[in-house]
Amino acid sequence: MPEISKKGRLMPESPIRKLVPYAEIAKRKGRKVYHLNIGQPDIETPEIALEAIKNFSQRVIEYSHSAGIISYREKLAGYYKKHNINITAEDIIIGAGASEAILFAMQSCMDPGDEIIIPEPFYANYNGFAVNSGVVVRPIPSAIETGFALPPIAEFEKVITSKTKAIMVCNPNNPTGYLYSKKELETLRDITKKYDLFLFADEVYREFCYDGKKHFSVMHLKGIDDNVILIDSVSKRYSACGVRIGAMISKNKELMKTALKFAQARLSPPSIGQVAAEAAIDTKDSYFKMVLNEYLARRNVVVESINNINGAFCPVPSGAFYVVAKLPIDNSDKFCKWLLEDFEYNDETVMFAPATGFYATKGKGMDEVRISYVLNVNDLKNAMKCLEEALKVYPGRTL
Amino acid sequence: MPEISKKGRLMPESPIRKLVPYAEIAKRKGRKVYHLNIGQPDIETPEIALEAIKNFSQRVIEYSHSAGIISYREKLAGYYKKHNINITAEDIIIGAGASEAILFAMQSCMDPGDEIIIPEPFYANYNGFAVNSGVVVRPIPSAIETGFALPPIAEFEKVITSKTKAIMVCNPNNPTGYLYSKKELETLRDITKKYDLFLFADEVYREFCYDGKKHFSVMHLKGIDDNVILIDSVSKRYSACGVRIGAMISKNKELMKTALKFAQARLSPPSIGQVAAEAAIDTKDSYFKMVLNEYLARRNVVVESINNINGAFCPVPSGAFYVVAKLPIDNSDKFCKWLLEDFEYNDETVMFAPATGFYATKGKGMDEVRISYVLNVNDLKNAMKCLEEALKVYPGRTL
Repeated sequence: MPEISKKGRLMPESPIRKLVPYAEIAKRKGRKVYHLNIGQPDIETPEIALEAIKNFSQRVIEYSHSAGIISYREKLAGYYKKHNINITAEDIIIGAGASEAILFAMQSCMDPGDEIIIPEPFYANYNGFAVNSGVVVRPIPSAIETGFALPPIAEFEKVITSKTKAIMVCNPNNPTGYLYSKKELETLRDITKKYDLFLFADEVYREFCYDGKKHFSVMHLKGIDDNVILIDSVSKRYSACGVRIGAMISKNKELMKTALKFAQARLSPPSIGQVAAEAAIDTKDSYFKMVLNEYLARRNVVVESINNINGAFCPVPSGAFYVVAKLPIDNSDKFCKWLLEDFEYNDETVMFAPATGFYATKGKGMDEVRISYVLNVNDLKNAMKCLEEALKVYPGRTL
Repeated sequence: MPEISKKGRLMPESPIRKLVPYAEIAKRKGRKVYHLNIGQPDIETPEIALEAIKNFSQRVIEYSHSAGIISYREKLAGYYKKHNINITAEDIIIGAGASEAILFAMQSCMDPGDEIIIPEPFYANYNGFAVNSGVVVRPIPSAIETGFALPPIAEFEKVITSKTKAIMVCNPNNPTGYLYSKKELETLRDITKKYDLFLFADEVYREFCYDGKKHFSVMHLKGIDDNVILIDSVSKRYSACGVRIGAMISKNKELMKTALKFAQARLSPPSIGQVAAEAAIDTKDSYFKMVLNEYLARRNVVVESINNINGAFCPVPSGAFYVVAKLPIDNSDKFCKWLLEDFEYNDETVMFAPATGFYATKGKGMDEVRISYVLNVNDLKNAMKCLEEALKVYPGRTL
């Protein structure tokens, strides 16, 4: 039997999915499991997008342009204009989700052995895309005590080598919910410029900013047009994860010409998803207001509940729909498994993602979990009650 | 400005798309262009698949399982059973087209520097996937004189090194239309076994076999279950290229576990496309009979027309919807450009894919073009007339 690849052996298992078999165990035991482990919202996709699917009228479901349907990209440029981001259809390549867009960007910018700096904790699949591309992730620490703010310049400079090709941030952040300020983005601009690096910004949670704070995009930075790559997706914005429509956006013409070669090799992004995504651009502001209010209420339930638990702590993040919480536990992997295998409170339990999977540095995140507030307020309250009770009896509690 | 990747510079331009700007020139000159350059059929997608899209009823367009919707994979196993291919849902990972499935397979089997043997000419995008994965393609020659039959074992053995990890074939073949026989598949099995290699077979044209010939699948081979990877797609089968639904299929459990990690990193394949593909499995036999008759008539028009042209030659392929034709020309890239830029017959011209893009060996395919018979018989006749007239006046003709 031929050996599988070294790359394949290095590929990390998804920290979000590796506990799924344990959730099955809980369910077999007749327990209700609150799934706060994944970024799959329960919010309805806008009616206008669902209608567009119903009205899909092609008689031959054809390939689209490799960079995406032109009318969609043009309309998308209009969406960005509303956010003061000035780009044209030519600056956009549509990918099968942000996932494919990140792969296009990594492979166009970086070769095997090149390094990318990412503040940790970070979205776990960045690890997978890096292994896939042979790229080395150099993590720098952000800390729960400062709410996971951008690490100081000195931390970046500590790890910059001749192999460093890029910096990547997610803003608002998955898993921390942290919203980077204009000043922090300007710090990134300065480092990027000084060392002539690419700056990747994953802004798929742009719409989800709370407490009156405004999102400042990497595309708002002046003077580094050729360095900046915006990664985007409609998955969270319109609660349409399954359409698999994302985008790689840059004003760097040579880079986009290169990325288009990767896009052409796989022919085209999904057609029907693009039709839904194009229609979704006309989603009314009232939808976003409703969704934002809903998420805000959920965030408040989670944050308040956590901070009312003895020995637990969680910052108040201003974006996305995640928090990273510090818990009085010995090992978050063990704890999350135990919650599913051995614990119940009123026949219910809760599923989190152990934060260890969001750190590249071994040993970090042992007392932290990521909580996705993707369920309604009532379910969240029950889930938080489960957590509170669990922490009273968990054998590995440290309080 | 940071440098783009070496990999990006190495990525080949699509031979199918690089002439598109010249087609625009022809259109601006008011000429009708017959597009025989691409594998985008004009055949209608089965009604049952289009209906499934219209009836899509999810209120939240969710991620599917990373390996694909379970009910779809189970039904798909039933489709294969009808073709005497015994697999289960667990042996299938759904990809965004055969493209993504090939990437999963290459990356799970091979590391940068590893080698894959592919008889040339071959589907041009294999080059792109190989560059993407850092894999080296070792072409071995198949020849138009033998109708592009499988090269003899000696040709494989000439290029096998310690770096060789896999052999790849496309059956029926794109670009040649050649249908490999059972005996040829058994030859591949023997080499695969002797050198313990992976055997990739791209069988997306399985349904398109003519002259009463039957398709023999790589999955029918005995004794090499752990070596075989079947690549498939619904794009051509149901004329649904835009749904972007393909599959990587293997009984090698360790390999599939590894491939699933790549699949999990990108979360899920397109949901709506999977719904359409699942419905399409119930497409009636009458649809395939109609389509097959149509393609057969088209093939006959193209093959007869070519072989009636002085100095031109084309074998009679038994599969897919392509032929590679040898023409009395100096340079197929120049000729195909000239057809678009400088030629017209009754205000019409024709677009082919120069065969050079389907060879990895530089200089090969200079007097060959790939013709996709994706238009109706009448259009094909007009297109072939254009070709005949063009060859009388092309400045680089060699007759």
